[in-house]
Amino acid sequence: MEINSTRLWSRINELGQIGKDQQGGLTRLAFTEQEHQAKQLLTTYMEGAGLEVREDQIGNLFGKIKGTDPNARTILIGSHIDTVFNGGIFDGAAGVLIGIEVLQSIKQQKLKLTNDIEVVAFTDEEGARFSSGMIGSQAFIGALDVNDLYAYTDQFGISIAEAMKQQGYLPEHVSRAKVDPEKLACYLEVHIEQGKILESKQVPVGLVTGIVGLRWLKIKLHGEAGHAGTTPMHLRKDPLACAAEMIQAVETLAKAEQATVATVGQIKVKPGGINVIPSEVEFTIDLRDLSDPLLDKLVDRIRQDLKRVATKRGITADCTVIEQSQGVKTSETINHAIASAIAKQNLETVELPSGAGHDAMVVAQITDVGMIFLRTKNGISHTPEEWADKDDLAMGAQVIFDTVKYLDLQNNG
Amino acid sequence: MEINSTRLWSRINELGQIGKDQQGGLTRLAFTEQEHQAKQLLTTYMEGAGLEVREDQIGNLFGKIKGTDPNARTILIGSHIDTVFNGGIFDGAAGVLIGIEVLQSIKQQKLKLTNDIEVVAFTDEEGARFSSGMIGSQAFIGALDVNDLYAYTDQFGISIAEAMKQQGYLPEHVSRAKVDPEKLACYLEVHIEQGKILESKQVPVGLVTGIVGLRWLKIKLHGEAGHAGTTPMHLRKDPLACAAEMIQAVETLAKAEQATVATVGQIKVKPGGINVIPSEVEFTIDLRDLSDPLLDKLVDRIRQDLKRVATKRGITADCTVIEQSQGVKTSETINHAIASAIAKQNLETVELPSGAGHDAMVVAQITDVGMIFLRTKNGISHTPEEWADKDDLAMGAQVIFDTVKYLDLQNNG
Repeated sequence: MEINSTRLWSRINELGQIGKDQQGGLTRLAFTEQEHQAKQLLTTYMEGAGLEVREDQIGNLFGKIKGTDPNARTILIGSHIDTVFNGGIFDGAAGVLIGIEVLQSIKQQKLKLTNDIEVVAFTDEEGARFSSGMIGSQAFIGALDVNDLYAYTDQFGISIAEAMKQQGYLPEHVSRAKVDPEKLACYLEVHIEQGKILESKQVPVGLVTGIVGLRWLKIKLHGEAGHAGTTPMHLRKDPLACAAEMIQAVETLAKAEQATVATVGQIKVKPGGINVIPSEVEFTIDLRDLSDPLLDKLVDRIRQDLKRVATKRGITADCTVIEQSQGVKTSETINHAIASAIAKQNLETVELPSGAGHDAMVVAQITDVGMIFLRTKNGISHTPEEWADKDDLAMGAQVIFDTVKYLDLQNNG
Repeated sequence: MEINSTRLWSRINELGQIGKDQQGGLTRLAFTEQEHQAKQLLTTYMEGAGLEVREDQIGNLFGKIKGTDPNARTILIGSHIDTVFNGGIFDGAAGVLIGIEVLQSIKQQKLKLTNDIEVVAFTDEEGARFSSGMIGSQAFIGALDVNDLYAYTDQFGISIAEAMKQQGYLPEHVSRAKVDPEKLACYLEVHIEQGKILESKQVPVGLVTGIVGLRWLKIKLHGEAGHAGTTPMHLRKDPLACAAEMIQAVETLAKAEQATVATVGQIKVKPGGINVIPSEVEFTIDLRDLSDPLLDKLVDRIRQDLKRVATKRGITADCTVIEQSQGVKTSETINHAIASAIAKQNLETVELPSGAGHDAMVVAQITDVGMIFLRTKNGISHTPEEWADKDDLAMGAQVIFDTVKYLDLQNNG
């Protein structure tokens, strides 16, 4: 391998100490002392690797190797170093540290690349503190203005802008964080999968075909409460029986598609007595797929099914889309380079969508993006038990190293 | 009609004032000042009707007309006068006041009946105060001993025994409330239906074929939590999808039978995030039918279905029977008399099971029982909106009046 797996692993563990509590949970929120310490450590790594280090007005931290062509564009590699409350040491950090490792290896091997190669640690991807994520990448593409920074607050009522000031940033200068898209060649991100596909296929890395679009539906059903003993089955208007039929229908709809996922994670029943036919049921549907037209078609199908099932059962039904985001496809050119890099390691190229949002989804609005996933143990993330193996991290770094070389050849000027 | 519908209706409303709050809800719990006042009012009615009045050691209040045969047995008519919290004026009270009305009419018409005819207001049928109902009828059949009276407490920690003492009763004498079953000819009860069958059939009264047996099941499902976006459908172990399939299966099982009812009234999902596949689901099933062998067969079928569905889905399932009671059939002889009394009014005889428990279920352990139901508006009970029409109450009283006459002819000695 051309990367240093021991150094990478040691950094994963060293960075993983910052923000760790006594129970092993990691909490490193945006614009906190913990995040500041983490960036100082990253700066040490970057400077030690001989990179040009800079931080922008939203706190995104960059390290760069200049290319041989002064007019060449930048191949950017990154992820984030903030965490959720009580999270793990790999989510985000793995991508940033692999970026640094790739750049350090390029430096050490004195590779002459045409393009600028840059690594970035984006600010606040998770949104754990201000309930509004992707702050760093949004500012980077110019989609965040100073008003947004005053609009979101943490649990203590401190706005993003105030939190920034406390750490010495100037919220009024946030627009300066915007990159010139003309100067970007592409963006690459490595992230833990947070799922079980790679584990079940027994491969260390996977090629991400895109980031799925999302629809969140809230369904409210009104029926008629009644005594469980005195209301014959044919006189009932039971909204929970209706919900059960719909949950089944939604599962069947998703299973009939290639890669759609549909989840009912919340259900509330009123009045909730063991011997009372419910009067009201509310449940949610989380629907995801790479294809937005398919998602829209499925939402229509769910509405039609709901109307049919509710009418049959004498239930009043209401279905609202409470949240949605569009799907993003990764670049075919980049995916070709990634697939070649994976093949070079004699590994099968497993293609999979990303079911969760990532900074790449934001950056895709201004440039081509590519992503690889790292195998995650038991599909678990956002807890201290989140895990990726040392060898898998090394493999991820090696694949990105080769991908950068291939892309650099294709991006000559 | 041989009964006085105006008097009956006026008493329903007069008794319905005792325990009423400013919002119109009725709360008349056992061994309270409200219940005491209600019994004083009943005593006034009974004495005014010329009945021999007595109260037993558990507070059951009786009014009797002696029969012409000193060795004849007693035809007992009754129900209860306690209510749930925030209940209505008909549940229980209708049966007791119809009993008094029937006896008063017999007295006024100077009918000479062979048997003793007695009306009873049983203590604490609802179990609202001590979470243990049918106290009066249990003591009446000898199924309650003094230890039981110390075992159950109200929300303030006051036991039944202490509450009794506060009202001047002697809990240690509870066994004296036991009736000699040899002296009972039968027990008749009138109660509001608390369902919609009579309303849908447009008849004022119905013949109760029995009181259903009950099984309460608690089903616990353990699956595997996961990210809604990153877990493909085929890698899921979703306990809520499993629960939905089971809720459907239970509904189908019940619908395939003649009169079985099955209700899922509670469902809890963990962790309950909109974008998290649940790890645990717990739900209840309330299953009722007149036939206990059928109930047992259905519980077996549910266990089999659950095993099949859970295994298919990789879910660990546990099913426990947390409560059960046996079904009780009403007497064919009494039902024949009731049917004749209904036919005399040129009404269709609508037979229906009682889906809820009543004192008749308890008294059936020592003597033949018969029941009629009164049409209930919208099937609603246990709320201030609970309603039965004046004419329907009168019809119920008339049917019991005639039933008592028929039964008296058949119970000569």
